[in-house]
Amino acid sequence: MTTRAVYPGSFDPVTNGHLDMIERGLNVFDHLIVAVAVNADKRCLFTVEERLDLIRRSLGDRPNVAVDTFSGLLIEYMRKRQVRVVLRGLRAISDFEYELQMALMNRRLAPEVETFFMMAGESYSYLSARIVKEIASMGGEVQGLVPPAALEALRRKFGGTR
Amino acid sequence: MTTRAVYPGSFDPVTNGHLDMIERGLNVFDHLIVAVAVNADKRCLFTVEERLDLIRRSLGDRPNVAVDTFSGLLIEYMRKRQVRVVLRGLRAISDFEYELQMALMNRRLAPEVETFFMMAGESYSYLSARIVKEIASMGGEVQGLVPPAALEALRRKFGGTR
Amino acid sequence: MTTRAVYPGSFDPVTNGHLDMIERGLNVFDHLIVAVAVNADKRCLFTVEERLDLIRRSLGDRPNVAVDTFSGLLIEYMRKRQVRVVLRGLRAISDFEYELQMALMNRRLAPEVETFFMMAGESYSYLSARIVKEIASMGGEVQGLVPPAALEALRRKFGGTR
Amino acid sequence: MTTRAVYPGSFDPVTNGHLDMIERGLNVFDHLIVAVAVNADKRCLFTVEERLDLIRRSLGDRPNVAVDTFSGLLIEYMRKRQVRVVLRGLRAISDFEYELQMALMNRRLAPEVETFFMMAGESYSYLSARIVKEIASMGGEVQGLVPPAALEALRRKFGGTR
Amino acid sequence: MTTRAVYPGSFDPVTNGHLDMIERGLNVFDHLIVAVAVNADKRCLFTVEERLDLIRRSLGDRPNVAVDTFSGLLIEYMRKRQVRVVLRGLRAISDFEYELQMALMNRRLAPEVETFFMMAGESYSYLSARIVKEIASMGGEVQGLVPPAALEALRRKFGGTR
Amino acid sequence: MTTRAVYPGSFDPVTNGHLDMIERGLNVFDHLIVAVAVNADKRCLFTVEERLDLIRRSLGDRPNVAVDTFSGLLIEYMRKRQVRVVLRGLRAISDFEYELQMALMNRRLAPEVETFFMMAGESYSYLSARIVKEIASMGGEVQGLVPPAALEALRRKFGGTR
Repeated sequence: MTTRAVYPGSFDPVTNGHLDMIERGLNVFDHLIVAVAVNADKRCLFTVEERLDLIRRSLGDRPNVAVDTFSGLLIEYMRKRQVRVVLRGLRAISDFEYELQMALMNRRLAPEVETFFMMAGESYSYLSARIVKEIASMGGEVQGLVPPAALEALRRKFGGTR
Repeated sequence: MTTRAVYPGSFDPVTNGHLDMIERGLNVFDHLIVAVAVNADKRCLFTVEERLDLIRRSLGDRPNVAVDTFSGLLIEYMRKRQVRVVLRGLRAISDFEYELQMALMNRRLAPEVETFFMMAGESYSYLSARIVKEIASMGGEVQGLVPPAALEALRRKFGGTR
Repeated sequence: MTTRAVYPGSFDPVTNGHLDMIERGLNVFDHLIVAVAVNADKRCLFTVEERLDLIRRSLGDRPNVAVDTFSGLLIEYMRKRQVRVVLRGLRAISDFEYELQMALMNRRLAPEVETFFMMAGESYSYLSARIVKEIASMGGEVQGLVPPAALEALRRKFGGTR
Repeated sequence: MTTRAVYPGSFDPVTNGHLDMIERGLNVFDHLIVAVAVNADKRCLFTVEERLDLIRRSLGDRPNVAVDTFSGLLIEYMRKRQVRVVLRGLRAISDFEYELQMALMNRRLAPEVETFFMMAGESYSYLSARIVKEIASMGGEVQGLVPPAALEALRRKFGGTR
Repeated sequence: MTTRAVYPGSFDPVTNGHLDMIERGLNVFDHLIVAVAVNADKRCLFTVEERLDLIRRSLGDRPNVAVDTFSGLLIEYMRKRQVRVVLRGLRAISDFEYELQMALMNRRLAPEVETFFMMAGESYSYLSARIVKEIASMGGEVQGLVPPAALEALRRKFGGTR
Repeated sequence: MTTRAVYPGSFDPVTNGHLDMIERGLNVFDHLIVAVAVNADKRCLFTVEERLDLIRRSLGDRPNVAVDTFSGLLIEYMRKRQVRVVLRGLRAISDFEYELQMALMNRRLAPEVETFFMMAGESYSYLSARIVKEIASMGGEVQGLVPPAALEALRRKFGGTR
């Protein structure tokens, strides 16, 4: 069978940790949909269009990855796209608890959807889009933490890191 | 591509939590190898043969599941079987830390092997082979926690639960 | 001696997890006061009156449960009501840390007040009023997670889930 | 109704943390049974008789506390004694996970039995019978951590702390 | 060599837990800089000037402690002041995860800067500036949790606790 | 003042994680004593002499590091050596809880002794002497995890890794 998975997130902006998850996911799944959450509540630094653009430019031309957006419940999106596997990264204990809660709730709402977790690589265990933005906003160097396209976009937002 | 995964463990004995993981794994992977660890150090209640037999009788006749044993490093077994996905369950925080350590170490030893985690179902979050044996050894009722074959085997070992 | 306990919370809205705690608390205590926190800071979906009403309609007519409100410090309310036992539920590690901090601080402020914890049932370990509201706001199904009165109220707020 | 609770443990030996739990438990329950686990597997420093004796001498003459032993499953003991409340202390995260597992398993085996937890006082959060024995065995001072009777017994076992 | 360390934080307001860390830090380091973070984003109860003043009045006249402010990245401040040791307190698991993330990120940004952690004393393990403000704002007694200068300042803000 | 610290452990055998801690400790302290615990209870793969030898050969000739052994309570050793700082590494949550318990207990036994923690580097967060021995015993490759001297010693014990 052809296996497809959805890798959902805010990607505000995409980091090297996200890209590592995508690479590793593609070692196992035939096709991956990177699904950017459009969440009215959550304040994002980048617009949905900017976030999609940064992911696309960072991934390059790959036939087995699609980039998409979704709003509302993830499981509704899964059903619409007829994909049954969610892919998520786990970094720390706080991740674990939230992810456990979401996975159990999603299973209750849609028992046919399965969530798979991969542990973040050791170099990415302390990396989050939130901390990248925090450092960049104070003029810190985030090269090596995000792909070049995101680095450039962060510099435009915060006015150059050097 | 055909996806195969190895689901390793001690299975001393197989529990309903293990069976739930196997069922859910088969929703995603084409073929699953349940791999019983033969560990000279670890004291087990059941012999390797008994453990294999209990898994086989509990799974019934399924063409897409194989039951096997392995000794030594899991990644060596993965290489020998040419499988690149390890499947593991996550129940609690203590699980999480140990699994994180093993996953990071295995990735260092064999970067081509990927470990995927599934959260244990809410009914199995407190269930372990260890606690099943502890209860059964004191004459407690473990029906509903293990498949009928394991229930019968535990009763033979500990002399009937009632 | 007649034992009474206060079960405090926001109850925004009452969930089946809360009701389970109340039932189990009544197996041990003669009388329970469900105390709705009136907190100027915290933004709630439902007004205090709505929250009280949902609890009352969900509990039905029970002589050994009272529903009340409190503002300010819980221990001041405990003293005013002359109750010495606080009842709290524990779900996860993050709960644990916050509850530990509050329990130690309350003991310092009022050594005569004792906090008792009950572990949430396995079916409620992933359930919180926050996640119920999040799902309902996106049109997800929350039947089975909240009592009928709360289900109806959530549907009125968010415009029907079906 | 008269409320009774069982406070189970190994008490090898009784510490000031245990005594604090008993005092605080008696503020809420009419009667407490301190139940010493007789566990063939677990290696204890003190015999069951010594452990019982140390508890009795440390508690003094109190009409509302009984000291008893139990073997096998706690819930069978609860049923035999017709008590429905188990009292347990919580110190740290590792406690939390084990206690959660036991509480959920006990509820499955005996839904009528309820487990209540109290957070250990800040002065006892790092105190366990295990660490007391470890320090005493190396000649360290444990005065203030255990009641006088246990202090004396530890000195007899390990040959004086100075 | 003369050892100097920076003890950074919000100090909104300084608590007895902070003062305990400073005392203990001075047992090891020759000189300590208490560095108040000027963070435009974070809403503080006290102004930077008030926070500096409360720390100074609480520490008294000590030649080996300086009180300063910093904005932006901590590591930039460390470099400017030519100090290579950051001192931080650890209270709980949630602290641990955040501190681990910050320490790893800071090491990446400035490998020459080392972060040292001390465990909060048992009496301060549940104490935070946040909970002090919460209690004081509801008229609760915070004497013994903060130094006299901070106590007085909190009373002025919230209108006297007695 | 000249600052000295003791870095205690089992070092069975010394790993690259230990060496990283020693290097980083020397950036802050003038002198470090690596103190190998001689513990009758704990079963070690290497004798005390072998462990000392492996540390010495791995550190090379450094005037500001001494290698020593201690038995019994660490705080007694600290007093005898007149050193007031203990240096410890923190990797994970389970580390954290054990270290917190030991630090609080040591402070009670010897208030003048202070324990400082450093977070393990991201490359060493999953590394322990225990897992190194486990992998080596099954013929796995541990090059890069331990210094050459320890690698050679492990190969002698377990008969070559290839």
